[in-house]
Amino acid sequence: MTAETGAAELQELAKRHLWMHFSRMGAYEAGAELPIIVRGDGCYVWDQHGRRYLDGLSSLFCTNIGHGRADVAQAGADQARELGFFTNWSYAHPRAIELAAKVAELAPGDLNRVFFTSGGSEAVESALKLCRQYHKLRGNGTKYKVIARETAYHGTTMGCLMATGIANLRAPFEPLPPGGCHVPNTNTYRLPEGHSPDELVEAIAHRIEFEDPSTVSAIILEPVQNAGGCLVAPKGYFQRVREIADRYDVVFISDEVICSWGRLGEWFGAQRFGYQPDIITTAKGITSAYSPMGAVIASDRIFEPFSQGTTTFSHGITFGGHPVSAAVSLANIAVFEEENILENVRANEPVFRGMLDGLRDIPIVGDVRGAGYFQAIELVKDQATKRSFDHEESETLLRGFLSGALFERGLICRADDRGDPVIQLSPPLIAGPEQFDEIEAVLRPVLVEASERMHVG
Amino acid sequence: MTAETGAAELQELAKRHLWMHFSRMGAYEAGAELPIIVRGDGCYVWDQHGRRYLDGLSSLFCTNIGHGRADVAQAGADQARELGFFTNWSYAHPRAIELAAKVAELAPGDLNRVFFTSGGSEAVESALKLCRQYHKLRGNGTKYKVIARETAYHGTTMGCLMATGIANLRAPFEPLPPGGCHVPNTNTYRLPEGHSPDELVEAIAHRIEFEDPSTVSAIILEPVQNAGGCLVAPKGYFQRVREIADRYDVVFISDEVICSWGRLGEWFGAQRFGYQPDIITTAKGITSAYSPMGAVIASDRIFEPFSQGTTTFSHGITFGGHPVSAAVSLANIAVFEEENILENVRANEPVFRGMLDGLRDIPIVGDVRGAGYFQAIELVKDQATKRSFDHEESETLLRGFLSGALFERGLICRADDRGDPVIQLSPPLIAGPEQFDEIEAVLRPVLVEASERMHVG
Repeated sequence: MTAETGAAELQELAKRHLWMHFSRMGAYEAGAELPIIVRGDGCYVWDQHGRRYLDGLSSLFCTNIGHGRADVAQAGADQARELGFFTNWSYAHPRAIELAAKVAELAPGDLNRVFFTSGGSEAVESALKLCRQYHKLRGNGTKYKVIARETAYHGTTMGCLMATGIANLRAPFEPLPPGGCHVPNTNTYRLPEGHSPDELVEAIAHRIEFEDPSTVSAIILEPVQNAGGCLVAPKGYFQRVREIADRYDVVFISDEVICSWGRLGEWFGAQRFGYQPDIITTAKGITSAYSPMGAVIASDRIFEPFSQGTTTFSHGITFGGHPVSAAVSLANIAVFEEENILENVRANEPVFRGMLDGLRDIPIVGDVRGAGYFQAIELVKDQATKRSFDHEESETLLRGFLSGALFERGLICRADDRGDPVIQLSPPLIAGPEQFDEIEAVLRPVLVEASERMHVG
Repeated sequence: MTAETGAAELQELAKRHLWMHFSRMGAYEAGAELPIIVRGDGCYVWDQHGRRYLDGLSSLFCTNIGHGRADVAQAGADQARELGFFTNWSYAHPRAIELAAKVAELAPGDLNRVFFTSGGSEAVESALKLCRQYHKLRGNGTKYKVIARETAYHGTTMGCLMATGIANLRAPFEPLPPGGCHVPNTNTYRLPEGHSPDELVEAIAHRIEFEDPSTVSAIILEPVQNAGGCLVAPKGYFQRVREIADRYDVVFISDEVICSWGRLGEWFGAQRFGYQPDIITTAKGITSAYSPMGAVIASDRIFEPFSQGTTTFSHGITFGGHPVSAAVSLANIAVFEEENILENVRANEPVFRGMLDGLRDIPIVGDVRGAGYFQAIELVKDQATKRSFDHEESETLLRGFLSGALFERGLICRADDRGDPVIQLSPPLIAGPEQFDEIEAVLRPVLVEASERMHVG
């Protein structure tokens, strides 16, 4: 087969051989056409029929500098000519070292120790393992549980699923590792009457007390929670988490697989909200997805018990710190610095958010929330009462109408119901007013039609 | 920082920032020099001092076509110009489709469904999750356990660790997911007196009966078991595993993260030994490590319950099926086909193995075993009694002497004691008699000296 494999043949081969992720394969078995993306450039991708789409989700929050950067791709190929692969097991190589130093320079505070992986799940998995061994090395072998939030997505390997707070991602694979403890998330739009947003963080302290602090290893939180629809925490939330973590000797992990590398207008999400975690997990934007990579960035304090005698963090990933991925990441970071990517997000966030807030006149739009280039619209049956859709309605709304209608009009974004139904928008960080106008031109008529179809308003 | 970062600066930055995998970081904290690999070509790599090494472990069983293939690297960069990233979540792209079709064509029997990941641990993790959901979909929700072998390495994420049979990789991270059940491995060199090798496979049937078949989901086995030192199974072992799997409705996973892509002289290890698994897990050689990638290859029968209605394999990995990795893999497979890589292994395996068998006159050499370009030497205190070294002696032998001595003489291989002490050799698949001579020229004097130091013989 070659690059010229014909469109019909590609469809047939895909249906016969490619087991897609998180996909209802039955639809394709039944004859539905599989969307095949063939080309990317800047904020746009093209399908096999030549139709153009605005990549409003940055290919799952990944392509931060946009598609088609031949220079970044070439940095990988050039590295491969020199050294195409070597491991970080007992050996080092220049690009992994340089990238570790660069990441440590950009990360907040004393997060100076970088353990590379091949992606986000592996980063979270490695961080959770690291926390357990950290406590064991310090003589606290009973601390193994992790506090996470309901509806939060922290990856799909079994250790990650312990933290992921979404039942239908967990249930088919149980029993999982023991230790997952979930607390309410920060969907302040749905805060029960009579409750203050400030109480939300106390649920963490309460849960640690309830479990017994001697059994709790880590707290893992995203700066802005993805699943559930870009849930922003109340002011002061993370500062209080820091206090709680210190008080109970629990490791504070900031899961920034999405929220780092400019997504919120800063290198790291923790910087946006001014808090200091013990560990940051990252992936996606670290290479803008030009090559698979992830990382655990740990503080000197977390590293310390591993720096003694013959002690080993008994963990490794063959492709962790891959020299090609590391070279691509260095080139990606150079683009950030040379082309003022963070500044673009900071300058345009109000424009982006303003456009989305402008949709609030559409009856189905309940809430608009998020930070940086990471925003969500929560859809409701009634703006006044905030009543949501039931499961069947949500299925009709999201999969029966919205996903298809948005895609047909040239917008790739996420119409999702992990939690209540939301639309998520997270364009490449090079996007600006032109793209926001395009997003609005698709969203407005489609949401108006959705309101009518669902008899909202 | 640039490619010109100086040697001393690299050392310093590495020690300060790069958390290496499976490494005793304390040694570097205490001042030891970190080996930094800067360049690769064919079967060789060079360190920062310009010293050349024979890569006798193919960089952890990965660089099957050898280092420095500019053409394969360029295929990745060319793909990135066209489409640098898109996911396999609800969307497809040409390179993932073409690679899935190619992998299905090469894989044995009806292994036609390919689910891509970013590496080996993710492949095993995905396979174990797949088996659990497969049984649940078929109404057998109580089947969740996995049968694996003692000392076997199946990866490091928590689901994988359930199967991995090495205590010190598991203990620091417990509690793990419930369900790991271990049976004896096939180290026939150490088979207790009065036992027949044929009994080994019956331990699997016995364990399934002991656990109750209604609780057992999968059996996972490597064609040749890596940890423990290239343990080959007795003739007929895998055919009997197939019968056992069918009898108890248990999924048979052939974990070929190492043993596929020519390592044993065939595309897949199952083909070398003539058996038909339900799932193959692979990674490493699928790209010869020019880009991170892994895959789960499942039979049509395993896919079937996922092909109905709105059913979804509730699992995904952002970077799975990465277009750059897929393009690199296609280019890698083309090299295999155009340059007769499998044929080179088949033609030279007897020469390689003959050289190693020729070392049996050295008193410390107890056993030589393996298949293809995947061979091990087990080290003993006494050839006649097969007595092994205790923990302290093993530490002195492997880390106190062998690892350093082999490296200093220009050979990278593995001196390991997961199980009894072994040296593992697994050169790039383009190696031939010239490289075997070089390996012998290093191994022989070093093993002779090791015998003397350890007072063997």
